[in-house]
Amino acid sequence: SQYEYVRQFEQNDSLLPATWLVVRIDGQGFTKFTTRHGFTKPNDIRALHLMNRSAKEVMESMTEIVISYGQSDEYSFVFSKDAKAYDRRASKLITLLVSRFTSAYVYYWSEFFPDTKLQFPPAFDSRVVQYPSDRIMRDYLCWRQVDCHINNMYNTCFWTLVNKGGMSNKDAEKRLSGTLSSDKNELLFGEFGINYNDEKEIFKKGSVLVRENTLVDVTTPEGKCAKRTKSTVVILHCDIIRDQFWNDRPELTRDRPTKSERKAERAKQREIELAAEAEAEEEAAAKRSRQCKAGETDNKAEDDA
Amino acid sequence: SQYEYVRQFEQNDSLLPATWLVVRIDGQGFTKFTTRHGFTKPNDIRALHLMNRSAKEVMESMTEIVISYGQSDEYSFVFSKDAKAYDRRASKLITLLVSRFTSAYVYYWSEFFPDTKLQFPPAFDSRVVQYPSDRIMRDYLCWRQVDCHINNMYNTCFWTLVNKGGMSNKDAEKRLSGTLSSDKNELLFGEFGINYNDEKEIFKKGSVLVRENTLVDVTTPEGKCAKRTKSTVVILHCDIIRDQFWNDRPELTRDRPTKSERKAERAKQREIELAAEAEAEEEAAAKRSRQCKAGETDNKAEDDA
Amino acid sequence: SQYEYVRQFEQNDSLLPATWLVVRIDGQGFTKFTTRHGFTKPNDIRALHLMNRSAKEVMESMTEIVISYGQSDEYSFVFSKDAKAYDRRASKLITLLVSRFTSAYVYYWSEFFPDTKLQFPPAFDSRVVQYPSDRIMRDYLCWRQVDCHINNMYNTCFWTLVNKGGMSNKDAEKRLSGTLSSDKNELLFGEFGINYNDEKEIFKKGSVLVRENTLVDVTTPEGKCAKRTKSTVVILHCDIIRDQFWNDRPELTRDRPTKSERKAERAKQREIELAAEAEAEEEAAAKRSRQCKAGETDNKAEDDA
Amino acid sequence: SQYEYVRQFEQNDSLLPATWLVVRIDGQGFTKFTTRHGFTKPNDIRALHLMNRSAKEVMESMTEIVISYGQSDEYSFVFSKDAKAYDRRASKLITLLVSRFTSAYVYYWSEFFPDTKLQFPPAFDSRVVQYPSDRIMRDYLCWRQVDCHINNMYNTCFWTLVNKGGMSNKDAEKRLSGTLSSDKNELLFGEFGINYNDEKEIFKKGSVLVRENTLVDVTTPEGKCAKRTKSTVVILHCDIIRDQFWNDRPELTRDRPTKSERKAERAKQREIELAAEAEAEEEAAAKRSRQCKAGETDNKAEDDA
Ligand SMILES: Nc1nc2c(ncn2[C@H]2C[C@H](O)[C@@H](COP(=O)(O)OP(=O)(O)OP(=O)(O)O)O2)c(=O)[nH]1
Ligand SMILES: Nc1nc2c(ncn2[C@H]2C[C@H](O)[C@@H](COP(=O)(O)OP(=O)(O)OP(=O)(O)O)O2)c(=O)[nH]1
Ligand SMILES: Nc1nc2c(ncn2[C@H]2C[C@H](O)[C@@H](COP(=O)(O)OP(=O)(O)OP(=O)(O)O)O2)c(=O)[nH]1
Ligand SMILES: Nc1nc2c(ncn2[C@H]2C[C@H](O)[C@@H](COP(=O)(O)OP(=O)(O)OP(=O)(O)O)O2)c(=O)[nH]1
Ligand SMILES: O=P(O)(O)OP(=O)(O)OP(=O)(O)O
Ligand SMILES: O=P(O)(O)OP(=O)(O)OP(=O)(O)O
Ligand SMILES: O=P(O)(O)OP(=O)(O)OP(=O)(O)O
Ligand SMILES: O=P(O)(O)OP(=O)(O)OP(=O)(O)O
Ligand SMILES: [Mg+2]
Ligand SMILES: [Mg+2]
Ligand SMILES: [Mg+2]
Ligand SMILES: [Mg+2]
Ligand SMILES: [Mg+2]
Ligand SMILES: [Mg+2]
Ligand SMILES: [Mg+2]
Ligand SMILES: [Mg+2]
Ligand SMILES: [Mg+2]
Ligand SMILES: [Mg+2]
Ligand SMILES: [Mg+2]
Ligand SMILES: [Mg+2]
Repeated sequence: SQYEYVRQFEQNDSLLPATWLVVRIDGQGFTKFTTRHGFTKPNDIRALHLMNRSAKEVMESMTEIVISYGQSDEYSFVFSKDAKAYDRRASKLITLLVSRFTSAYVYYWSEFFPDTKLQFPPAFDSRVVQYPSDRIMRDYLCWRQVDCHINNMYNTCFWTLVNKGGMSNKDAEKRLSGTLSSDKNELLFGEFGINYNDEKEIFKKGSVLVRENTLVDVTTPEGKCAKRTKSTVVILHCDIIRDQFWNDRPELTRDRPTKSERKAERAKQREIELAAEAEAEEEAAAKRSRQCKAGETDNKAEDDA
Repeated sequence: SQYEYVRQFEQNDSLLPATWLVVRIDGQGFTKFTTRHGFTKPNDIRALHLMNRSAKEVMESMTEIVISYGQSDEYSFVFSKDAKAYDRRASKLITLLVSRFTSAYVYYWSEFFPDTKLQFPPAFDSRVVQYPSDRIMRDYLCWRQVDCHINNMYNTCFWTLVNKGGMSNKDAEKRLSGTLSSDKNELLFGEFGINYNDEKEIFKKGSVLVRENTLVDVTTPEGKCAKRTKSTVVILHCDIIRDQFWNDRPELTRDRPTKSERKAERAKQREIELAAEAEAEEEAAAKRSRQCKAGETDNKAEDDA
Repeated sequence: SQYEYVRQFEQNDSLLPATWLVVRIDGQGFTKFTTRHGFTKPNDIRALHLMNRSAKEVMESMTEIVISYGQSDEYSFVFSKDAKAYDRRASKLITLLVSRFTSAYVYYWSEFFPDTKLQFPPAFDSRVVQYPSDRIMRDYLCWRQVDCHINNMYNTCFWTLVNKGGMSNKDAEKRLSGTLSSDKNELLFGEFGINYNDEKEIFKKGSVLVRENTLVDVTTPEGKCAKRTKSTVVILHCDIIRDQFWNDRPELTRDRPTKSERKAERAKQREIELAAEAEAEEEAAAKRSRQCKAGETDNKAEDDA
Repeated sequence: SQYEYVRQFEQNDSLLPATWLVVRIDGQGFTKFTTRHGFTKPNDIRALHLMNRSAKEVMESMTEIVISYGQSDEYSFVFSKDAKAYDRRASKLITLLVSRFTSAYVYYWSEFFPDTKLQFPPAFDSRVVQYPSDRIMRDYLCWRQVDCHINNMYNTCFWTLVNKGGMSNKDAEKRLSGTLSSDKNELLFGEFGINYNDEKEIFKKGSVLVRENTLVDVTTPEGKCAKRTKSTVVILHCDIIRDQFWNDRPELTRDRPTKSERKAERAKQREIELAAEAEAEEEAAAKRSRQCKAGETDNKAEDDA
């Protein structure tokens, strides 16, 4: 129609190719939301499981996400460097992702909070950040896991002081101000007999979602039983700061070669094949020549015979 | 922490000031979603009401939206030219909006589809477009309403041919190919006795959400009854292409003056006030002088007396 | 070649349609450049004329610029709202413009500074800003002209105190700190007999470049003399803050109608034409009928004759 | 002033940190420019030297450029991944660079074209592209050098056919259409006795600018002679596609460690130092203990004595 010219005002927002894309979502006003819904303090395990369930839904709908990390009211999703979805259009990626996440959060709410009615529709914000190297992408995840650790240690102390120590919020805050990690460990153990190490891993480390290939039984079209590999999303609560996690999963950071590298690779491969062919050819020739000679000998032998 | 440097990779995405911002959301893969949930064809009134309910939720949470327009699986939200929310950061606006919308869609689903279980969490995409002038912003809305009209007329004919005319989908498509609006009107009326004008306005025009000030009864802190104006979101199904709608609602496109205009206005106002003061002063002086003279006269009179 | 994939990393930077584009360039490190080349203080008329010459070169090479404004080491170029050059790609606009400007500055240097050798190649930076309305675009130009006025008034006082008042730079600065425009006017007049109003307009107002249509004599292909209108760039030193300048030049801010307006306009035009045609037709018919009757009468008369 | 609000319309255009930035400039309409100035075909050595001189000027004014590559009417400048200039603002980088380049081109023109008057001020466009990895940045340079090679081989053949072979432009074009590199080599050698390998390297390979540290004699403040290392820009005409160039210059692609790596490095260093200290301490203790025992023995001996 005559009005279609308004489409020209839409601006292209495609992100850089060959770059890690990290989408982070975060609950809007969850300080109020968690209070209104009586979340356990400092960590509500039901809430964390609901977050994980929603993140799983997202990973199943966007297959180029290679790893996700969640804690508190937030989740980060890492798209592979060469992700192609929606032509890497920033708005498509962040809105479809946050929409799916929120949708799942409300959809699965009653499964995780069977006794708590959802009071109003919650919302999450979403943003995308580009990271040029593996190291910096990993540093991003370190940033979030260190944040989880720092907050959880603080919150654990704070609510122990309040709930078990009978302190007011203000006093607890004052008591903790200026303390280091080691002080907090000692406080918990010395005053309350709590070993911070014994706290739930999901609280201390947050949640890590990665894909794993598992063997599953399938029935073939011919009605036979067979094994197939299937990629499923698994939930871990492990350290992602140290190298080990990444060394154990080289596929997460493995570079898919660039076009020119693929071409060089193909060229090299062809050379190898040609060399192999040539060698085979040579050998075959040598063999033929041997056989020939042998034949001659045989013939001779026959002749001789 | 040492990892916080990763925040420097977040890029500023603030939109132009003093410009209309239009956010449009659209259901992802709703061809499949509507089929899976048995939506009435071509228009499912329950679905449209659910869309409107969700849009209302959005308008209540983002008060700088001045008008919204919805049809099919999409909704457009127009922020006032001088909207300040989230510093006009594009990603904040589009993600919080689509998240709230989706959240409400799932949250209110059972209210509008009491007999249909939601099969899986739906998702919407979202984008923002900037429009520099009132005329172009209005042309944007015209574009969407014309699209609604064209699609609805086509769909009405198509499903009439199929459902009442007993045609196959293919034949119906062929029958309609190349027909103009007038042909379609005639087809409906001539062959099926249907007057397109009698179709539901919500189908023909889509839905328009605007704010209206209404008087409501409130109880004051002192326990008395009183009237207050309250802004509520109302749902219309009217033409927004012609001038009338906009002439009737001058507040929608009224320019808030720029800073320099406000300053000029204040200066002019001050001049007027000064002039008024001066005049008043003069008059007062004149009066005093008259009174004075009168007094003298009086005195004289008194003296004379 | 296999390497061409690197082009995919170029990002689209097209600016909003139907929006004023203002490109401002500014001399890099001109504090040093002006010192090294012995520019007259506070204003070097040769330098200003060279700036104007370079800006004229730019306007001649980019025909969608409707007005330019220059002062000190800077120049602003206003592209018409519907400029189409280089698809409105930001980088093309700002780089070609600044490159042409710089090129002209060096190229014409010796024409304006015949006795001063250019010591090293100067550089200018360049940026583009989008303005959605006429009012705000005009406020932009006001901002620059007010800046010119403020700086020039200050500099005039400062260098008068130093050069004629024999003050040190420091003392002059101190003397002027906290003074208002009126104080400065008085200082100049009271202490030095200088009427600021008598200063050169190019210093007080800066330079305004607009296009003007003039009649020129041309020789037609047939060798005859003829008049043609030719658009030339003229240099003014006038106020562009008040309405008068803009009222006198309505073409500067005249909106080219949008597509939908043009269509509506054409429709209306067609109606008018149809009405006119119909009227003409009617009249013609009436005339024919009159003529016919008259003819009958005539015929009769003839018959009678 | 009241007008300063217009600055809020300037948008932030900072580029991604830790990413290669490549600025490419290209002569505008140089097909016409080279004709008007009688450039030698296909390569004008004076023009190439002038381009190189201008690029050198740019590298001297922007010290974070690590390598530049030029051919025909274009030049590419590679900023180091961690370049900080102008906060990585895209418009500042591309405009200051192209302005300086153009300025130098006009400024040095007469030095390289002593007998050719510059007819009009030339202009260059400029753009910036971000490359996330060393490999892709190198592929960018490969793209340009391959382009140089392909064009030069074609142009050499074309102008040989025209100038030495007496062909029309059209015929030369036809003759070359569909030919491969090897065909062109043969044509040159077979028909004209020209060995393409003997062509000037600057034509075949383009120009590569890198910085080199050289020892220079300086006079110290105390008036003595001394050697200092000074970084100067050198011009090469070598292959930059193969690894050798890069292996020979590891500083070009050496990563400066990230913040977290620097911290880890420091921590490791500290551990090493602590270990060393501890060891030293231990040894010292052992020594003291030995000395002590020895002393005791001595004492004993003394006692005994
Ligand atoms: N009780 C409880 N609160 C939680 C839990 N997880 C998150 N929260 C609360 C703690 C914080 O107040 C809030 C998350 O902090 P944010 O910085 O995201 O703040 P908030 O969401 O209120 O504001 P925002 O809209 O994100 O700026 O959610 C939980 O498991 N239990
Ligand atoms: N039966 C029925 N279908 C509807 C109704 N409203 C929308 N739809 C369907 C018709 C279209 O297939 C679809 C909307 O078209 P779209 O262009 O948005 O396509 P879709 O959402 O499938 O793909 P997308 O992800 O938006 O590209 O939703 C309704 O009230 N009843
Ligand atoms: N003597 C003299 N100086 C002038 C004239 N026009 C401009 N200038 C000087 C005054 C200022 O120091 C300088 C312009 O100020 P800017 O704010 O643009 O500073 P500058 O160019 O030094 O730094 P920048 O690279 O733009 O940040 O140029 C003139 O006509 N005569
Ligand atoms: N005769 C001669 N011509 C050259 C030389 N170097 C470049 N040129 C010409 C050949 C091409 O026509 C032109 C460069 O090609 P471009 O693709 O950059 O085209 P041009 O600058 O005309 O247009 P543009 O504004 O860049 O799109 O410059 C030279 O050394 N000698
Ligand atoms: O949301 P916060 O408070 O963690 O901090 P932020 O992410 O820097 O703020 P914003 O959400 O406004 O980007
Ligand atoms: O979504 P469509 O099909 O209406 O068309 P579009 O909006 O132009 O496509 P996209 O959603 O990819 O921007
Ligand atoms: O250049 P200045 O000093 O007038 O100030 P600015 O334009 O705000 O600074 P920048 O040139 O860095 O955008
Ligand atoms: O300039 P060209 O012709 O080499 O091609 P381009 O760079 O793709 O075109 P543009 O200068 O318009 O970006
Ligand atoms: Mg936040
Ligand atoms: Mg939050
Ligand atoms: Mg949070
Ligand atoms: Mg779409
Ligand atoms: Mg859809
Ligand atoms: Mg749709
Ligand atoms: Mg500046
Ligand atoms: Mg300057
Ligand atoms: Mg300046
Ligand atoms: Mg080009
Ligand atoms: Mg060119
Ligand atoms: Mg070129």
